[in-house]
Amino acid sequence: MTGQFRDIAVVLLSGGMDSCVAAAWAAQNHDLALIHLTYGQRTLVRERRAFDDIANHYGVPDSRRLVVDTNFLARIGGSALTDSSIPVPGAHTPGLDVPLTYVPFRNAHLIAMGVSWAEVLGAKTVAIGVIEEDSAGYPDCTQAFMTAFNRAVQEGAAAPPSIVTPVIHLSKADVLRMGNELEAPMHLTWSCYQNDDIACGTCDSCRRRNQAFEEAGLIDPIASI
Amino acid sequence: MTGQFRDIAVVLLSGGMDSCVAAAWAAQNHDLALIHLTYGQRTLVRERRAFDDIANHYGVPDSRRLVVDTNFLARIGGSALTDSSIPVPGAHTPGLDVPLTYVPFRNAHLIAMGVSWAEVLGAKTVAIGVIEEDSAGYPDCTQAFMTAFNRAVQEGAAAPPSIVTPVIHLSKADVLRMGNELEAPMHLTWSCYQNDDIACGTCDSCRRRNQAFEEAGLIDPIASI
Repeated sequence: MTGQFRDIAVVLLSGGMDSCVAAAWAAQNHDLALIHLTYGQRTLVRERRAFDDIANHYGVPDSRRLVVDTNFLARIGGSALTDSSIPVPGAHTPGLDVPLTYVPFRNAHLIAMGVSWAEVLGAKTVAIGVIEEDSAGYPDCTQAFMTAFNRAVQEGAAAPPSIVTPVIHLSKADVLRMGNELEAPMHLTWSCYQNDDIACGTCDSCRRRNQAFEEAGLIDPIASI
Repeated sequence: MTGQFRDIAVVLLSGGMDSCVAAAWAAQNHDLALIHLTYGQRTLVRERRAFDDIANHYGVPDSRRLVVDTNFLARIGGSALTDSSIPVPGAHTPGLDVPLTYVPFRNAHLIAMGVSWAEVLGAKTVAIGVIEEDSAGYPDCTQAFMTAFNRAVQEGAAAPPSIVTPVIHLSKADVLRMGNELEAPMHLTWSCYQNDDIACGTCDSCRRRNQAFEEAGLIDPIASI
């Protein structure tokens, strides 16, 4: 990288695989500004470590890291990820249209934060690593939602950035292949909903991760049970 | 009111005149659920009192009051309302397209919270008392934004409520006339950006309030200097 000026991209970085690849995609031709949400999830500390590790990997300065405590999502409630009285499902629960781990309209909050910060930073891009494939249960991960929300941003922001979704039409295996090509630091990511030391391998998120690595023909660099 | 079941409307209630009239409008045929945002604004405590007074007026139980500390808006910064180092403008600053009191994309955060809570409560309506007339400086107060955001809600929420804007096309004077008809408790509202005991009468918000009462031919029931 030369010293030339590059546009800033705000990337929503949970610390999972998809957002890590979104960051790797944006890093090709932007300086990164990384935003991380904590919302009372069980694996908050571990996800935060993944966020910091990835930010360090890309040399992002403190002034372009924003960690936001959105405990209001926990207070609004209604989700297994934020309510410790609801057990984390071992797999998708049959008969439910929406997984128990759904936080109502969560991506709207996430993207709105990215947009507000982008306006302050003068960033023209807000990137989010959602995958349409996951949208069977999460309506806020669909292309239809992203397109509609992007229109709302163009109407409602003073200096509207574009919402971009670099992996939305990929399978999770193809996200891993893309990450591999872009040299995304997958060894620094975290996916498990249940543990923060060794991935449990059995929660929804671990199963999706393991299946994706298998399909991609790649080895997961993180340890699991 | 009889004991019959009424749909719930989530109303975004700042404690100012416009949101109070929106609450009065919704209270005609809904049970109210009231949400209030604090975001590091100067008059936080006074606005909270207005919120509680109006909630008490409509007999809203604690389980349907939600006060959310959104200090992330203050941390993202860029606004005179949340940054005590920037003086509150006495009037709209000439040459600025956007008032200094603008919090980037604020209404998106507000409405997203209303939508998330509506999903948990099973509410079919989220009401917000924005006025298009104010939109010269606030792009997130326009009908175009509300329409676009409502479309995003329909795509991105599991049980999407409708976003309704009962006063959006009214002048502020007409909002007051509507409030008068609906017996909205205007004596419990607060508008001043500067003080929390007696309204200053000179900040942008006070000037708009005073002008509106004058135009409506009504007397402001709150004391001012």
